[in-house]
Amino acid sequence: MKQNYKLIIAYDGTRFYGWERQPGRDTIQGKLESVLTQLTGAPVEVIGAGRTDAGVHARAMTASAVLDTDKSPEAIRDYLNRYLPDAIAVREVKPCADGFHARYKARGKTYRYTCFDGAVKPVFDRRYVTVLDYCPDEERMRRAAAYLTGEHDFAAFCGNPRMKKSAVRTVDSITVERRRDRVIFTFHGNGFLQNMVRIMVGTLLEVGRGLREPEDVQTILESRDRRAAGSTAPPEGLCLMKVDY
Amino acid sequence: MKQNYKLIIAYDGTRFYGWERQPGRDTIQGKLESVLTQLTGAPVEVIGAGRTDAGVHARAMTASAVLDTDKSPEAIRDYLNRYLPDAIAVREVKPCADGFHARYKARGKTYRYTCFDGAVKPVFDRRYVTVLDYCPDEERMRRAAAYLTGEHDFAAFCGNPRMKKSAVRTVDSITVERRRDRVIFTFHGNGFLQNMVRIMVGTLLEVGRGLREPEDVQTILESRDRRAAGSTAPPEGLCLMKVDY
Repeated sequence: MKQNYKLIIAYDGTRFYGWERQPGRDTIQGKLESVLTQLTGAPVEVIGAGRTDAGVHARAMTASAVLDTDKSPEAIRDYLNRYLPDAIAVREVKPCADGFHARYKARGKTYRYTCFDGAVKPVFDRRYVTVLDYCPDEERMRRAAAYLTGEHDFAAFCGNPRMKKSAVRTVDSITVERRRDRVIFTFHGNGFLQNMVRIMVGTLLEVGRGLREPEDVQTILESRDRRAAGSTAPPEGLCLMKVDY
Repeated sequence: MKQNYKLIIAYDGTRFYGWERQPGRDTIQGKLESVLTQLTGAPVEVIGAGRTDAGVHARAMTASAVLDTDKSPEAIRDYLNRYLPDAIAVREVKPCADGFHARYKARGKTYRYTCFDGAVKPVFDRRYVTVLDYCPDEERMRRAAAYLTGEHDFAAFCGNPRMKKSAVRTVDSITVERRRDRVIFTFHGNGFLQNMVRIMVGTLLEVGRGLREPEDVQTILESRDRRAAGSTAPPEGLCLMKVDY
């Protein structure tokens, strides 16, 4: 019997070409769809809450998929975990209403970006942090981040130059925390444009190392010009932490 | 000028053939010696506190090496970290007395072994845990571990069948802790035989899943026969945490 399911997925994105299915390339959506197709014997489409870039990780990506199977939710989860690569785990499979759509129904997302600026390179979590060769000033970055908080047109922070739709989004909160030799940025908002978190981090880091002033962020936002913002921070430090519905 | 140095090294052992230098294979000692030889321009021997097996990790392996260089200890450390593979980091380089020998002077070692027995496979630390398909009983394992604590002839827990020297060692403490879906064994002792920690863990797990009784450990010790003990637990869950001098 056909039933809509909600899936919560964790992945180490290091060796994947991002979330979105691409012919001939390993992607998270592609792997999930191929194992679910094998399980049900019919093509399955997996709808993600969003698309993470190549190399980006997730602790709790949310997806939905309509499956025609007699297996229990736990049996579906165990089947997925047995056949998916080691770097992808399905944490939860739950039957949900027909109307649940992982992308359209998403109300908010939390992303975390972790930088490492210690003297000795990290070993055990080296795939999940971006290593810096300078120590950014958190206080300057906090002041800069305050300009990004709220409802704004984030066109200057969008990696897709052909983006035609509205770039207005609300970022409720940005925190910048230091934990010994790590600097952790946490973003919560109602939606994020392509590369938006990475461009915000790239820009904040330029403020943090003194190449720009915190108040420059205001001018960058107003420009609506991608060239005005900082560089796109590398993917490895980024992790999708949670999707709200 | 020649100077003896103490090095503290962390490594993810996943892709290495263990600590000990081997022709044509990637080993931790081999990598350290080759970068130090490149730094000093003369062959360098790196003496480790012990030899970890292929696939075993370390947070603080200690080594000593005599180096002829004008570089400062920090410059030696930075040079090593620049040229070593990502999976090996030198945390500290310190000049030490000529008489310091990382192996002969080691008085004690702490090893940790981490098992995972949750329903959903781990993603982010998957290289550092051993995944079990059963949930061992900690209380039974604690009772079994009590028999291993103290001074004993550990011949039954030695992986080297040609071992001729004394197998008497003192294990001061073994703790068995549960942290949600992880079971963590911590061993401290004055020295460990080849594979000894992994055979102790393999045996404790057999007690934990009910295949043996805690008091069987006493009989195994007395047998001095490797075949009486349990299987050798896999390397990935094992990590050398600290060496005492």
